[in-house]
Amino acid sequence: MESSNKRMLTPSDYETHADDYMDPAALAYIAGGAGKEKTLRDNTKAFETISLMPRAFADFSQASTQTTLLGKPMRHPTMLAPVAAQSLVNPMGEIATAQAANAFETGMIVSTLCSKPFADVAQATDQTKWFQLYFQQTRALTKVPLDKAIAAGFEAIVVTLDTPIQRPSKRAQLNNFALPEHAAPANLAPEPSAPAIEISKDESVIFQGLMTSAPTLDDIAWLKNYTDLPIIIKGVLAPDEIDQLLTLGIAGLIVSNHGGRALDGTPATLHMLPNIRKQVGEQFPLLFDSGIRSGEDVFKALALGADAVCIGRLQLYALAANGAHGVAHLLKLLRDELELCMALTGCPTIADINASRVIDKDTLS
Amino acid sequence: MESSNKRMLTPSDYETHADDYMDPAALAYIAGGAGKEKTLRDNTKAFETISLMPRAFADFSQASTQTTLLGKPMRHPTMLAPVAAQSLVNPMGEIATAQAANAFETGMIVSTLCSKPFADVAQATDQTKWFQLYFQQTRALTKVPLDKAIAAGFEAIVVTLDTPIQRPSKRAQLNNFALPEHAAPANLAPEPSAPAIEISKDESVIFQGLMTSAPTLDDIAWLKNYTDLPIIIKGVLAPDEIDQLLTLGIAGLIVSNHGGRALDGTPATLHMLPNIRKQVGEQFPLLFDSGIRSGEDVFKALALGADAVCIGRLQLYALAANGAHGVAHLLKLLRDELELCMALTGCPTIADINASRVIDKDTLS
Amino acid sequence: MESSNKRMLTPSDYETHADDYMDPAALAYIAGGAGKEKTLRDNTKAFETISLMPRAFADFSQASTQTTLLGKPMRHPTMLAPVAAQSLVNPMGEIATAQAANAFETGMIVSTLCSKPFADVAQATDQTKWFQLYFQQTRALTKVPLDKAIAAGFEAIVVTLDTPIQRPSKRAQLNNFALPEHAAPANLAPEPSAPAIEISKDESVIFQGLMTSAPTLDDIAWLKNYTDLPIIIKGVLAPDEIDQLLTLGIAGLIVSNHGGRALDGTPATLHMLPNIRKQVGEQFPLLFDSGIRSGEDVFKALALGADAVCIGRLQLYALAANGAHGVAHLLKLLRDELELCMALTGCPTIADINASRVIDKDTLS
Amino acid sequence: MESSNKRMLTPSDYETHADDYMDPAALAYIAGGAGKEKTLRDNTKAFETISLMPRAFADFSQASTQTTLLGKPMRHPTMLAPVAAQSLVNPMGEIATAQAANAFETGMIVSTLCSKPFADVAQATDQTKWFQLYFQQTRALTKVPLDKAIAAGFEAIVVTLDTPIQRPSKRAQLNNFALPEHAAPANLAPEPSAPAIEISKDESVIFQGLMTSAPTLDDIAWLKNYTDLPIIIKGVLAPDEIDQLLTLGIAGLIVSNHGGRALDGTPATLHMLPNIRKQVGEQFPLLFDSGIRSGEDVFKALALGADAVCIGRLQLYALAANGAHGVAHLLKLLRDELELCMALTGCPTIADINASRVIDKDTLS
Repeated sequence: MESSNKRMLTPSDYETHADDYMDPAALAYIAGGAGKEKTLRDNTKAFETISLMPRAFADFSQASTQTTLLGKPMRHPTMLAPVAAQSLVNPMGEIATAQAANAFETGMIVSTLCSKPFADVAQATDQTKWFQLYFQQTRALTKVPLDKAIAAGFEAIVVTLDTPIQRPSKRAQLNNFALPEHAAPANLAPEPSAPAIEISKDESVIFQGLMTSAPTLDDIAWLKNYTDLPIIIKGVLAPDEIDQLLTLGIAGLIVSNHGGRALDGTPATLHMLPNIRKQVGEQFPLLFDSGIRSGEDVFKALALGADAVCIGRLQLYALAANGAHGVAHLLKLLRDELELCMALTGCPTIADINASRVIDKDTLS
Repeated sequence: MESSNKRMLTPSDYETHADDYMDPAALAYIAGGAGKEKTLRDNTKAFETISLMPRAFADFSQASTQTTLLGKPMRHPTMLAPVAAQSLVNPMGEIATAQAANAFETGMIVSTLCSKPFADVAQATDQTKWFQLYFQQTRALTKVPLDKAIAAGFEAIVVTLDTPIQRPSKRAQLNNFALPEHAAPANLAPEPSAPAIEISKDESVIFQGLMTSAPTLDDIAWLKNYTDLPIIIKGVLAPDEIDQLLTLGIAGLIVSNHGGRALDGTPATLHMLPNIRKQVGEQFPLLFDSGIRSGEDVFKALALGADAVCIGRLQLYALAANGAHGVAHLLKLLRDELELCMALTGCPTIADINASRVIDKDTLS
Repeated sequence: MESSNKRMLTPSDYETHADDYMDPAALAYIAGGAGKEKTLRDNTKAFETISLMPRAFADFSQASTQTTLLGKPMRHPTMLAPVAAQSLVNPMGEIATAQAANAFETGMIVSTLCSKPFADVAQATDQTKWFQLYFQQTRALTKVPLDKAIAAGFEAIVVTLDTPIQRPSKRAQLNNFALPEHAAPANLAPEPSAPAIEISKDESVIFQGLMTSAPTLDDIAWLKNYTDLPIIIKGVLAPDEIDQLLTLGIAGLIVSNHGGRALDGTPATLHMLPNIRKQVGEQFPLLFDSGIRSGEDVFKALALGADAVCIGRLQLYALAANGAHGVAHLLKLLRDELELCMALTGCPTIADINASRVIDKDTLS
Repeated sequence: MESSNKRMLTPSDYETHADDYMDPAALAYIAGGAGKEKTLRDNTKAFETISLMPRAFADFSQASTQTTLLGKPMRHPTMLAPVAAQSLVNPMGEIATAQAANAFETGMIVSTLCSKPFADVAQATDQTKWFQLYFQQTRALTKVPLDKAIAAGFEAIVVTLDTPIQRPSKRAQLNNFALPEHAAPANLAPEPSAPAIEISKDESVIFQGLMTSAPTLDDIAWLKNYTDLPIIIKGVLAPDEIDQLLTLGIAGLIVSNHGGRALDGTPATLHMLPNIRKQVGEQFPLLFDSGIRSGEDVFKALALGADAVCIGRLQLYALAANGAHGVAHLLKLLRDELELCMALTGCPTIADINASRVIDKDTLS
């Protein structure tokens, strides 16, 4: 499989060639998006609206991609996004991913729906590692993965709020995707012990059923009391709701629409990023997710306000292609492309990457 | 045929797969639009210009899609649009549609060109039922279906004004479509008893012929005197003509371009909706027609000013696919999608769906 | 061939099916445009940017398409554009076209490069007939066709000014198009008697060669003295040059880019029409050419300022398809579509077709 | 091969048909662009946003394409861009190109990576000839080609600054392109005598490796002292960096993004041209590069502010097709098209080609 790297000249090659080495149903599950996949498409197309301004004379003798997040240095401004059930594509699952993160000095966010014990995953990397929390039906059930994650030494809690309901994509349904046993969550309560919800004829399965488990602002407040770990919110985009979260004292935000897997019709996150940066202020930790397919994309997200970016689907394609080596190679391709962009736009440091380095056609003539 | 539901994961699947189970000529007749079908295409494309703003923290414990139209409660803000000659695609025709409307608690508008006796259709549903009137060549001829509809217990009269002339679409002509005997209007005068119009050499078949039967404002006034039922106008878009109708005391408006079957080149109705809502005021009953293909589309039309929407072509595809079960399933898919949109945009009630929940790219950065 | 009319449901069907009955080289010659054919494409695409506003309540009892041009009544606001060498596609050539014009009460503009004697063409129609003049290398050579045209009874002179140089289109070249003997100009001087122009090494064949025959403002002034017939200019678009022509006392303008056959890159004429109407004033005779493919297009050109439109390529496709019957059928299709547009937009007369009947998306919300 | 000219009706035909006569790997190397080739595509698409305004009455008796650059007359405002390794496509390489330049009275810029001795190339043409300089790893290494170029009689130095790092395009990599021995640089130091750079684990091959050879403003100042030849900068687009260069006393600028081969995501150069012309003032020598595929494109670049344009890829396709004859024929096609544009837009001289001759749709109505 090592030889497949030859065709992997850019990060998106892992996506382009995924159907060569992945099970069609697993690929449909990973690649698919909500509804008509308009948000999925818009997330990547948004990057085409931004141009880069070349520069010639910056001094690169001290240049580096190093940056700092939550007070901790990072070798480069890229993290592995929380993706569920990674054993689906590789028997080592999240452990292989963590090995790649460790080898390429990259932060990693581990999903609630991780298919390997948190402790084993955490042990595989000395780099930044955060835990992504999906609130469960009851607080007792929520504490099961949460306590394990805290015990495993994760350094922050990322709470995902954009998918109180997540339907399988149409692609996944048409491919009859079902999660295999070996990729099932390894860190949740042993069996579905929450009481079934009863829905009357005049009620809705969605409203009076599924949405009763949706996390509330109170849940975030509870979590903040429950642990001293910094809390980062992923997937809240409405300005007033962001304000509520800031008031509550969260430590960071991840601008995300769940890679187009949640509400189809949501705008591309790249278009929402500048206003959110404006709202939270220059110093607040802000990550970007949904749509990154190249180092050039990383550069553009940083230029428009992100401190770092998260890599979702590409991570899984690379894991499927070549395990830990695939993921490490993907991360290397991303950093090489980012460095090339920095070199040709005159940005020796991550701090140099700002709005003045990108350009909008409307301002040209 | 029940098994075909498996492929029907979204409402538009009934359209996508229609050629698997429909006679090509009947499909051409139903699917086709006027002229080059630009309006037909624009009607659906217009929805892609509107984005949805996700929200996380609304309380859905009391949520529902219930709403009120002309003072009567509706389980959800969707109605079956008046579509002619439904026996074309199912032997039970409009009776099957009415059964579905009844089963899924949905309002129905029955066409003047209904292929089943009005009384039989009306009897099949306890839900909201309105009668759609095409004015005939003379008032005497118009009274024939009108009196039958009033006797059958329809609760409102919807007058369609956008098609004084309606040519068969090019698709229908190329497929040699002709309405079969069993789908002919069942409620009109027994034979065409109106006198033939004579056209001189210097006159036009269109102007001095067909247009002499076009309904006028006087006809609406006459109708208002003739019946106490509320009168709803479908297909008038010009602001000054809407004003004339409001002055006359109509009870509601349906913003429609006849699904792109009347004047090709008419703008997408979704683009015209906000200004018409502005013109008629917040409380005036306003329905939307032409272009709805998903629950997300329903949400967007409500957000831009509609109180409810009408479903036209999809209704016929579902009726063709699986009779009353098909239509009921279609309505369920539409409501599920609408509920999902409401859940993920933080709208527990129909009243919460307003312009603040949709977003225009231009406002983003 | 009569039966082919069955497939000709809209005017543009004559274009769509042209390759079924036309010689490929002749079709390439007629269909092709200058350069990369961007102007050719833009001419038709421009019509898609204009929408129509439907209306319901106008009175059509006295409606008609009748209008007046240069003081003479016309049955409908459409003229046959001057197209060269019509014997290329039909042995009767321009005589057949004139018969169609006569039968369908349509004005006709006959080209300098007409393949039949002017007298024969003029004799075939009692309708409005104008003569299109290409200035020749010398005034003596120019007088040859001009005198014949005046003698034949043409009622106005249309001077084309946009093609001092006209290269065969790339399509025509790739198809090795050469004008056959029987389609050669029938009304020019018997042999090329003008002296050959000598070009030095430092001069240009285009500048010091071909452009020396380009007509000047002086030539127009000379023509105005030479004949009392009204002079109409075709193909001048620059505002200051239009002003010069107005000062000279021309009788009308045809807004045209030669159907995209002259300078590729010229804007679509439809986009230039409103400003030119503004410049020449409401009463000045203004025709529109380049891009008309339907009665809806005729309506839009009138709404944006034209008094009448010219039909170029479609005329030749219809002539090729079915001779005089084809052209008459084409004209009928165009008028039917125009009447339908008028009926559904509430315009009982040509004078009612103005800018208020078309609509721009930007004004909608 | 002479007969292939028959298919070459426009300059871009040499590009369209290149795969008929070129080695796939060589073609991939020449045709490819950086990254996803967005800039490559945008460079040519930008020309489609500009329209031409036709004019009828200009006097062309004295018309010509003659112009002046750096005080020296040019027969037409087109130069052959510096392209490396031309022996790749023709055994005579840059000598054949120079012969074409001489025959068609065209300026030529010879690349540092020229595959033939500078003296031999310079000897082949009496027309304007400039030398394009890539700074080498050390000044000593830079002097090797520089001294040879000065000795060969080149009249100006063009310093390229947009590609301190240039990766082979993805196309070139996928085609396993490698520069053959016979196309290697013929004028550089005999062997890579610069010391290898050592990179530590925490450093970057790009930043601490490749970028250490990137030319700085000091290098330009050094060059200015080293030679009296005028210095022209190619590929600097940032306004403040242009200001620095103007202060340094450069003699001209070439607006270029290296034909989309350097930083993908850079805006089309045509969109940047007007502002740069505004910045440097009306008299400063300004050339345009990247995207020219026709004489119409030449016209548009001149209208938006360029004094002359450079032809890159087309030059190589024509050289591959037919050696010196191919390049001369290409130049003739370009000038013919430019002359035709000038004739039909009323521009008898290059000085007449200005912003008033092009038109933007937004200004039309």
